[in-house]
Amino acid sequence: MTLNQGFLTDFHHVAEFGATDRNGVDRQAATPEDRLSRDWFAEFAKNEGWELRVDSIGNMFALIESNPGAPHVLLGSHLDSQPLGGRFDGAYGVIAGLHAAKNIKRRLDDEGLVPEFNLGVVNWFNEEGGRFAPSIMGSSVFVGSMDEAEMLKVKDLEGTTVAQALESIGYLGKGQRPEVAGYAEIHIEQGRILEREQINIGAVDYSWHTQKLDIEVLGEQSHTGATAMADRHDALVAASKVILKVHDVAANFSEGSIVSSVGRMTLEPNSPIVVARRVHLIADLRAETKHDVLEARRILIEQIAAIGEEHEIRINVQDFDVREIQYYPVEGLELAEKSAANLGKSIRRIRTMAGHDSVAMNRIVPTVMLFIPSIDGVSHCEREFSTDEDMLHGLDVLTDVGWEMSFGALKENALQERSKDEYAQGVTA
Amino acid sequence: MTLNQGFLTDFHHVAEFGATDRNGVDRQAATPEDRLSRDWFAEFAKNEGWELRVDSIGNMFALIESNPGAPHVLLGSHLDSQPLGGRFDGAYGVIAGLHAAKNIKRRLDDEGLVPEFNLGVVNWFNEEGGRFAPSIMGSSVFVGSMDEAEMLKVKDLEGTTVAQALESIGYLGKGQRPEVAGYAEIHIEQGRILEREQINIGAVDYSWHTQKLDIEVLGEQSHTGATAMADRHDALVAASKVILKVHDVAANFSEGSIVSSVGRMTLEPNSPIVVARRVHLIADLRAETKHDVLEARRILIEQIAAIGEEHEIRINVQDFDVREIQYYPVEGLELAEKSAANLGKSIRRIRTMAGHDSVAMNRIVPTVMLFIPSIDGVSHCEREFSTDEDMLHGLDVLTDVGWEMSFGALKENALQERSKDEYAQGVTA
Repeated sequence: MTLNQGFLTDFHHVAEFGATDRNGVDRQAATPEDRLSRDWFAEFAKNEGWELRVDSIGNMFALIESNPGAPHVLLGSHLDSQPLGGRFDGAYGVIAGLHAAKNIKRRLDDEGLVPEFNLGVVNWFNEEGGRFAPSIMGSSVFVGSMDEAEMLKVKDLEGTTVAQALESIGYLGKGQRPEVAGYAEIHIEQGRILEREQINIGAVDYSWHTQKLDIEVLGEQSHTGATAMADRHDALVAASKVILKVHDVAANFSEGSIVSSVGRMTLEPNSPIVVARRVHLIADLRAETKHDVLEARRILIEQIAAIGEEHEIRINVQDFDVREIQYYPVEGLELAEKSAANLGKSIRRIRTMAGHDSVAMNRIVPTVMLFIPSIDGVSHCEREFSTDEDMLHGLDVLTDVGWEMSFGALKENALQERSKDEYAQGVTA
Repeated sequence: MTLNQGFLTDFHHVAEFGATDRNGVDRQAATPEDRLSRDWFAEFAKNEGWELRVDSIGNMFALIESNPGAPHVLLGSHLDSQPLGGRFDGAYGVIAGLHAAKNIKRRLDDEGLVPEFNLGVVNWFNEEGGRFAPSIMGSSVFVGSMDEAEMLKVKDLEGTTVAQALESIGYLGKGQRPEVAGYAEIHIEQGRILEREQINIGAVDYSWHTQKLDIEVLGEQSHTGATAMADRHDALVAASKVILKVHDVAANFSEGSIVSSVGRMTLEPNSPIVVARRVHLIADLRAETKHDVLEARRILIEQIAAIGEEHEIRINVQDFDVREIQYYPVEGLELAEKSAANLGKSIRRIRTMAGHDSVAMNRIVPTVMLFIPSIDGVSHCEREFSTDEDMLHGLDVLTDVGWEMSFGALKENALQERSKDEYAQGVTA
């Protein structure tokens, strides 16, 4: 328990980097606050004598060599947060990963064992995508599903590129990416299921189908005082109707099977006395099935066209960031269930509506994704909360899963064990 | 006509400062582009041998001393523009003012006359208010209806203050404000009336009653993917309903008697995968009567409260920038009508829906406001247009009005001649 007490101390220490007044953190990707948490991660690795590498998209790897030359099983998540986000989202997984690795390393040393795979802990760059869209950027570049050169050019709303931002905090690295044999991530659920059912651990079986719509509403700029109402082509009025349609589309489906929203919107020229000429917004659609996402998309595209006609305004809609359902390997679920059972923790299978770095990693290596309960199911906000006790339950299970994976528990290439149908859906996104 | 040809050359030259691809200008207050137009104004005054003063809110005065110690009749408008605004709004009035003053000065010299009042030309700071709200800032500070210290602290969306921005372009002056005996301004109509009726000049008899509503929608930040639709308090959805209500409220009144819109809106955190916690927007209400503005405001406040209840979201609404109807002095209208008649130009009385620097000046000195036709009535956009011919008609009338005012045409203090009721409405804003 001394070891795990160290985890809690570290967890609450990291929560001070970018801490907000109301118990949250604001530690967006490649900001000075993100740098503080990165420096802490590097220091942790150094103190343990682990090798630190930072790659050319800002991913940080703390690598432990127990079996020279063997590939690594990585544990981790991300230390960046949403603006005024919570302390738990991402950070829990990285810090739990560091302590799980430390626990495993100590046990290996104590027992004089050499594992089949080396361990490593990863802090992925820009999982949140709040400052630089799209989200899950670092891990997606790592697995090759996003183009690095393109991502380095992505700009935030102030026009700073990813490359410039990483350079400015000293984390645009050149380190070689480790060869990876498996990946395990633990995260808060960000939903109410585990809390409601009073279950310690969720083993994630699949991720929802998600996609975004990039919507550009092109009206005509004019004077808010001098232009007759009938003569206007107000992009903001049309955009407001689009936003309400995006919100309302969920009502066409059975409850809880789909979510839809607009979270980002910019307005030009955004002057109090000028009718807007252009509104750019991003709609987020996520559902349990690809069919429902496509159906919601179909309804919206029809409704958006009607809004454009009504206002004599052009509205461009483009698909963006499509992520097909990803099934996690059954062997990983079974491993998590065995570990939980051995440790006396309750566990259930659960889907994830949110995206995670593990969704990217699951494309290339056997991956295990674990959840712990979130109080009230809230996330991406300051009152996001999980208890110390729940975090410790999760750390114990992650430690055991990491131990087993380093000894090859999933080495029979779990990717090949999955049904072909599921796998095909998982990799075509 | 040689003189007026000089006007056209200058007008089209100034349109190059901040010129956009589509014949507009982007010359927002205290930007490098605004500085170019200011340097040009200063150079014009210097070449004519006129005194230049820049006051502590960035207003520029080019002063001609023909009668030592006498107060000045000012001609002018503003050289700043909206983002992607038109070439005519404001700039026409300043450049016409410079050329009218030059014409008058030459005639005074030719005829060896000394006027009762000196002339001057003014370029008011930040009439547009696109970058720094509220609009009509420089002239309002000049007349004492806005507080200078407070205005210098106003920030743009990037956090730069008015004082910093003026300092950065070298136009935070210390010049003494001239004593003023009268004011005349010429401007594009920004509406369709003169064009439709094929009339050369509008003599503005009153300005509409206007006010803004500062609306803050306070929801709760949460994850767009992981938060159930029913658990959300989405500030953007509620704000979209508010925007539509603001737009629709005009339909409760007779056509053309009111305009209402939202032109500015900011969203927090504005992240693609986060449900918005706060939306801040500014609604602009303008009507022919104060009664209608107050009635629209009453309806909106009721509807906004209902939206807040429906979404369990707090919505704060505050009155802001209230401007009562201002009547321009009848003697000024008559002077304009006489000048137009003498010059063979058609003229009619017209109200202004848009605010102008003359609305501020009209509070303290006899003021004349003139309009020329706007093609299609569009303004605050790149396709804003008035013909060279119409601009020259206006310049002729402004020159004559300026001449008459410098000889005391309105000196019997026209402010006192107005009916007391009208005057009372004009100064209580």
